[in-house]
Amino acid sequence: MSANAPLAIGIDIGGTGTKFGIVDRNGNVLFSGEISTKQHKDIESFINDLYTNLSVLIDKAGGIGRFSGIGMGAPNGNYYTGTIEYAANLPWQGIIPIAKLMQDKFNMPVTLTNDANAAAIGEMMYGAAKGMRDFIMITLGTGVGSGIVANGQVIYGHDGFAGELGHMIIIPDGRLHAGTLKRGSLESYASATGVTLTAIEFLENSKEESLLRNIDKESIDSKAVYDAAIKGDKLALEIFEFTGKMLGLALANAVMFSSPEAIILFGGLTKAGDLILKPTKKHMEDNLIQVFQNKVKILISHLKESDAAILGASALVWEKN
Amino acid sequence: MSANAPLAIGIDIGGTGTKFGIVDRNGNVLFSGEISTKQHKDIESFINDLYTNLSVLIDKAGGIGRFSGIGMGAPNGNYYTGTIEYAANLPWQGIIPIAKLMQDKFNMPVTLTNDANAAAIGEMMYGAAKGMRDFIMITLGTGVGSGIVANGQVIYGHDGFAGELGHMIIIPDGRLHAGTLKRGSLESYASATGVTLTAIEFLENSKEESLLRNIDKESIDSKAVYDAAIKGDKLALEIFEFTGKMLGLALANAVMFSSPEAIILFGGLTKAGDLILKPTKKHMEDNLIQVFQNKVKILISHLKESDAAILGASALVWEKN
Repeated sequence: MSANAPLAIGIDIGGTGTKFGIVDRNGNVLFSGEISTKQHKDIESFINDLYTNLSVLIDKAGGIGRFSGIGMGAPNGNYYTGTIEYAANLPWQGIIPIAKLMQDKFNMPVTLTNDANAAAIGEMMYGAAKGMRDFIMITLGTGVGSGIVANGQVIYGHDGFAGELGHMIIIPDGRLHAGTLKRGSLESYASATGVTLTAIEFLENSKEESLLRNIDKESIDSKAVYDAAIKGDKLALEIFEFTGKMLGLALANAVMFSSPEAIILFGGLTKAGDLILKPTKKHMEDNLIQVFQNKVKILISHLKESDAAILGASALVWEKN
Repeated sequence: MSANAPLAIGIDIGGTGTKFGIVDRNGNVLFSGEISTKQHKDIESFINDLYTNLSVLIDKAGGIGRFSGIGMGAPNGNYYTGTIEYAANLPWQGIIPIAKLMQDKFNMPVTLTNDANAAAIGEMMYGAAKGMRDFIMITLGTGVGSGIVANGQVIYGHDGFAGELGHMIIIPDGRLHAGTLKRGSLESYASATGVTLTAIEFLENSKEESLLRNIDKESIDSKAVYDAAIKGDKLALEIFEFTGKMLGLALANAVMFSSPEAIILFGGLTKAGDLILKPTKKHMEDNLIQVFQNKVKILISHLKESDAAILGASALVWEKN
C-alpha cells in the first residue's frame, strides 16, 4: 500500500446490496463483485464478508502494495467523520464509524462520503461532468439524492451533510413524506416512490381512461407509468409532465443558488428520457430569472449504472492523493 | 501601488449613492466618503467624480504607493468578467466594463463582485462569520440578496452569478414580482417591498383593527409595520410572523443545500429584531429534516451598516493578495 500506487478500491453501499470494484487511475474497473448488505445485521459481519470477497480481488490485482486506498459511498455517509449516521435504509442503526473499522481491517486509508457525492465525483472524473468546476448531480431513484460541486470541490457543508436537495420544500403544505414527515419536499414528488404516489392520486382524482387502470393498485410503479406513457397513455403522460414540473421548479431554485454549468441526472427515473426531461427543462427555464435562462445544460449520466457508483467511490481516493 | 501595500480602497455602489473608504488590513476604515450614483447618467462622469473624491483621500493616506488595489461591490457585479450586467437599479444600462474603466483611471488592480458577495467576504474577514468556512449571508433590504460561502470560498458559479437566493421560488404561483415577473420568489415576500405588499394585502383581507389603518396606504412601509408591531398591534405582528414564515422556509431549503454553520442576516428588515427573527427561526427548524435541526445559527450582522459594504469590498483586495 502506498499513496502513489496505481489502484484503488471503490465500494458503494446500498440498502439491499453492496457493490465493490478494483479501479485504476483511468477509471477502468478491473474486477468487481457484490455482497448483500441487508443480511448482515451487525457491521462487523458485513466488514468481514467484504474483506473475504475483496481479498481475492486484491490478490488477483497484484497484492496490497498496488493499492492507494479505499473510497466508499453510503447513504448518510459523512466525509468529515467517516461515520454513517442514522441511515434509515441500512441494517445498522445509530452512528457507525465505518471508515475506522474498515481501515483497521484492511490496513489502508479509507475515505467515506454519501452516495450522491460519490456519484458526483465519479461524473467529474470520468463522466458527463468531466472538466466542469460547477455542476450538480441529482440521483432520481427510490429517493432523490444530490451532490453539489462548486469551484471544483464537493460542497460538504460545515457538518458534512450538505447536498440534501431531495428534502428541499417545493410545495409548502404539500404531499407528506413518509420518511421525514415533512410536507412538499422534492423527494416526495420526483423519486420513483413519488411517481407511484402521483399515479395513484391522478387515477383517483380523474375519470380519464388509462392503461394504468388495468393494473392492481399495489403493482403500479414508475416502470408501469413509463410503459403506459410510451404507448401514448394520456394520464401516464400527465404524470410525467407533473413530475417534470416539480423537478424543474427545484432545479431552477438550485440554479439560482449555485449557478452550475450543468445538472447531471442519474438513476432509474432518467430511463424515461424525454418524457421526464422535456417538462423538467421547460419548467426549470420558466422559473429562472433572465440572467440564468438558456445557459444550464441538463444531462443524463452516461456511466454504466453498476460502474458509476464504484467509480465515484474509488475517485475519492485519487482526490486525496 | 504594490501588491503587499497596507491599504485598499473599498467601494460599494448602490442605486442611490456610492460609498467608499480607505481600509487597512485590520479592517479599520481610515477615511470614507459618498457620492451620488443616480445623478451620473453616464459611467465616465461617475468614475471621474469618484476619482476626484478618492484622490484627496489617497493623498491623505500617504499616496498611491501605500495601496494594494480597489475592491468594488455592485448590484449584478460579475466577479469573473469585471462587468456590471443589466442592473435594473443603476443608471447605466447593458453591460458596463467597470473594473477595466476603473483600472485605467486609477492605475490600480480592481476586483468587482456583487454587493451581497462583498458583504459576505466582509463578514468572513471582520464580522459575524469570522473564522467560518461555511455560511450564507442574506441582505434583507429593498430586495433580498445573498452571498454563499462554502469551503471558505465565495460560490460564484460557472458564470459569476451564483447566490440569487432572493429569486428562489418558495410559493409556486404565489405573489407576482414586479421586477422579474416571476411568481412566489423569496424577494417578493421577505424584502422591505414584500413586507409593504403583505401589509396592504392583510389590511384588505382582514377586518382586524390596526394602527396601520390610520396611515395612508401609500405611506405604509416596513418601518410603519415595525412601529405598529412594537406597540403590540396584532395585524402588524401577523405581518412579521408571515414574513418570517416565508424567510424561514427559504432558509431551510438553503441549509439543506449547503449546510452552513450560520446564516448572517443584514439590512433594514433586521432592525425588527426578534419580531422577524423568532418566526424565521421557528419556521426554518420546522422545515428542516432531523440531521440539520438545532445546528444552524441565525445571526444578525454586527458591522456598522455604513462600514460593512466598504469593508467587504476592500476585503476582495486582500483575498487576492
